[in-house]
Amino acid sequence: MTPATTVAPPAISGDPPSEPRADAVQAPRLVTSTEEIHSSIRKPGSVKINVQGAFIVDAESTTPQRTNSLGNGRGSPTHHETSDIRLPNHTGGVSHIAVDIGGSLIKLVYFSRELPSTDPGGRLNFQLFETDRIDDCIEFMKDLRDKHIELNGPRTDELVVMATGGGAYLFYDKIREALGIDVSREDEMQCLMIGLDFFITEIPREVFTYSETDPMHFVTPRETIYPYLLVNIGSGVSMLKITGPRSYERVGGTSLGGGTLWGLLSLLTDATSFDEMLELAGQGDNTNVDMLVGDIYGQDYGKIGLKNTAIASSFGKIYRKKLEANAVQTEGETGSEAKPNGTSQKKPGFNDSDISRSLLYAVSNNIGQIAYLQSQLHNLNDIYFGGTFIRGHRQTINTLSYAIKFWSKGSKQAYFLRHEGYLGAVGAFLRRQPKNWGRRGSLEGMDELQEWRAQRVAAEASTTV
Amino acid sequence: MTPATTVAPPAISGDPPSEPRADAVQAPRLVTSTEEIHSSIRKPGSVKINVQGAFIVDAESTTPQRTNSLGNGRGSPTHHETSDIRLPNHTGGVSHIAVDIGGSLIKLVYFSRELPSTDPGGRLNFQLFETDRIDDCIEFMKDLRDKHIELNGPRTDELVVMATGGGAYLFYDKIREALGIDVSREDEMQCLMIGLDFFITEIPREVFTYSETDPMHFVTPRETIYPYLLVNIGSGVSMLKITGPRSYERVGGTSLGGGTLWGLLSLLTDATSFDEMLELAGQGDNTNVDMLVGDIYGQDYGKIGLKNTAIASSFGKIYRKKLEANAVQTEGETGSEAKPNGTSQKKPGFNDSDISRSLLYAVSNNIGQIAYLQSQLHNLNDIYFGGTFIRGHRQTINTLSYAIKFWSKGSKQAYFLRHEGYLGAVGAFLRRQPKNWGRRGSLEGMDELQEWRAQRVAAEASTTV
Repeated sequence: MTPATTVAPPAISGDPPSEPRADAVQAPRLVTSTEEIHSSIRKPGSVKINVQGAFIVDAESTTPQRTNSLGNGRGSPTHHETSDIRLPNHTGGVSHIAVDIGGSLIKLVYFSRELPSTDPGGRLNFQLFETDRIDDCIEFMKDLRDKHIELNGPRTDELVVMATGGGAYLFYDKIREALGIDVSREDEMQCLMIGLDFFITEIPREVFTYSETDPMHFVTPRETIYPYLLVNIGSGVSMLKITGPRSYERVGGTSLGGGTLWGLLSLLTDATSFDEMLELAGQGDNTNVDMLVGDIYGQDYGKIGLKNTAIASSFGKIYRKKLEANAVQTEGETGSEAKPNGTSQKKPGFNDSDISRSLLYAVSNNIGQIAYLQSQLHNLNDIYFGGTFIRGHRQTINTLSYAIKFWSKGSKQAYFLRHEGYLGAVGAFLRRQPKNWGRRGSLEGMDELQEWRAQRVAAEASTTV
Repeated sequence: MTPATTVAPPAISGDPPSEPRADAVQAPRLVTSTEEIHSSIRKPGSVKINVQGAFIVDAESTTPQRTNSLGNGRGSPTHHETSDIRLPNHTGGVSHIAVDIGGSLIKLVYFSRELPSTDPGGRLNFQLFETDRIDDCIEFMKDLRDKHIELNGPRTDELVVMATGGGAYLFYDKIREALGIDVSREDEMQCLMIGLDFFITEIPREVFTYSETDPMHFVTPRETIYPYLLVNIGSGVSMLKITGPRSYERVGGTSLGGGTLWGLLSLLTDATSFDEMLELAGQGDNTNVDMLVGDIYGQDYGKIGLKNTAIASSFGKIYRKKLEANAVQTEGETGSEAKPNGTSQKKPGFNDSDISRSLLYAVSNNIGQIAYLQSQLHNLNDIYFGGTFIRGHRQTINTLSYAIKFWSKGSKQAYFLRHEGYLGAVGAFLRRQPKNWGRRGSLEGMDELQEWRAQRVAAEASTTV
């Protein structure tokens, strides 16, 4: 069992542009000189982010310039609030935006100073878009670009979009043409790793463990973190074994991820957003649709340690009931009126919330089990769960956490993050940093990056022939 | 890589009631004396089955007394034909029936002589029922009992039902009362193991490996089989590590099994039987609903070895399309007419066959991956897939086989069986055998069995208080 560490936050490394100040959070606001901003923008790669005193901002205190880009009448899939991170000591200008464009969602991160405040610091802002609404995201980035020009003059050639995820390739030309600025494509797995390292080592009250009695037990930022397993749950699931700042291997994954949950529930229920689905799951009773050991045995199956309440077959009760209902319908021809509580002809006796909870359990349990097996195979005791699937949802976290505890008999620890969906985006953001900044050593792999880029260029050249 | 063995079939052990005859299959038919039958029935536990020369009977040559117990207008879930096994040298009487009562299906096995033939041998007959139609199954057993009385006189106290699976407990009283004969409850995992051992070691043309070019490559019965992993896929999935005739451990399982496929597809498609679902899957194109690596990246993700055709997210394309269709519907209010090809308002742009194939892939791939991980953890190279989920379906077998090959990089071998659904039932059938019969040593664990029964009695006593 790896206990939550209580090591003090490490001192910041790197080369902050102003003297570190111990009383940063309560400090009087200072003017950031245009000189400083220009200086950083003129020299791409020289932007240094001072994370000393960084903290997560309460949800109530929203960033003024945050707009709801999803208020488009189509139903927001992104109700889950992700608090900004305030960097009270950072005085550099904004010269880049980072996007992680996945199969379902775009995760966008940018730094902003708090205008009209004269505070030297600023915030890391987090924003979600649906991937098929890439145009909204591009509009949002245009807006950021225009604000940047307003503040800094037309030196837009220095503004860069750091892009990762599959969409960094799929939408590369589109973004570059629309914004007229450089787009740098970053390897997705590298970015996930760098982002997670940053959160683990630098941000207080970010990483937590879960238990029934203490559902959000924060782990103090610490330095000794390797090796660990990163399980990133987006539309699909990737599992990375990370053994050092430059060293990762994708050991596996599963196609049963967020996309599976959202896709099936959009067919099976009336929910139209991810959060509606999670809300339904919160109200449901999976035992109405799942076949339990007790449903088959009438009791525990004690010899092999299966309790009567264990789920033997997800959705295992549906087939029978559906056939019975079909038979009744054929006999009676009772018409097609919908029944209360989300049940209908198509789903006789089952309601949306029971189905939602069952599928949430099935997907989460399955990921938890595979994560355990991978961690066992690779001898890893710390398992970090990230990705937009989780959304801070208690049942999801509970299920993942329970799966690890159950399968490992308590020998492995599941960790969660408040910004779990933004590992890749933050990693991409941090890629544009001078060598040796940030997570100490995280970014030393520039040679590897160059190699990756060269490979990509070669691959593109060969596929476009 | 474990190659298919080509060892000659082992000579039969045990104590056959008549002299072994090398030319059994083509031998002239002999009369079985009533004396012999009575002798075996009078002494429960003394029934000896002579499997020498056993072979699987062609599907065309059906057993005369086989009835279609599912011709009840509700749609048979059991179209998949399981051929009988002929035991040409067996001359003992029938004194027991074996049933494996799972969450969804009952698997029934019984031996029959071939009346009015005077052939000394007979057949092992295989019969499926839906578990919620237990009454049909009991009627069928009553019929067998009556035939038994007709042949042997009213010595029904000697006829026994060997029952395994959860239903052996859930329906224990019901079966005993209905038939008026003894019901012996057998441990499910033990029966699976004994049944599989029997098929591997005794039945020619039973066990096979799969490849694209040779989809049913039979493995010759052999003696050296341990250790191996048994993956039994019924409503749910159990994985057993088997290290010797008496030695097994349930190392894991998953609730994503047959019940999940049948349950979800009965909600999502118009199919009303398992075989209709498999037929749909055979016609479908999962890329219409699954999100591939290429859908996210527009190309391979070569660095981590993911081809653009790899499934990144099962059902990952549905959420977007469904929302788009909802938006169109809200704008147009186009009514609710069903569209051709199984698509409908509820499933815009998706048809039943695409959904069926996607789910079949998802469930099979997932089981394959977990089976690989378990086999790797437990250092097992031979993986046998059994259970009623498979149903001899080529795509299912292909997917499971591919998953093992892919994940193990060809170092592990997947095996399949023609009677894959009957491992437990055959195991239960064989439990009523003299010590040391059948799979050499399989049945030595009688002390263990006694212990298990004592535990069960104690458990029942405590739960019924």
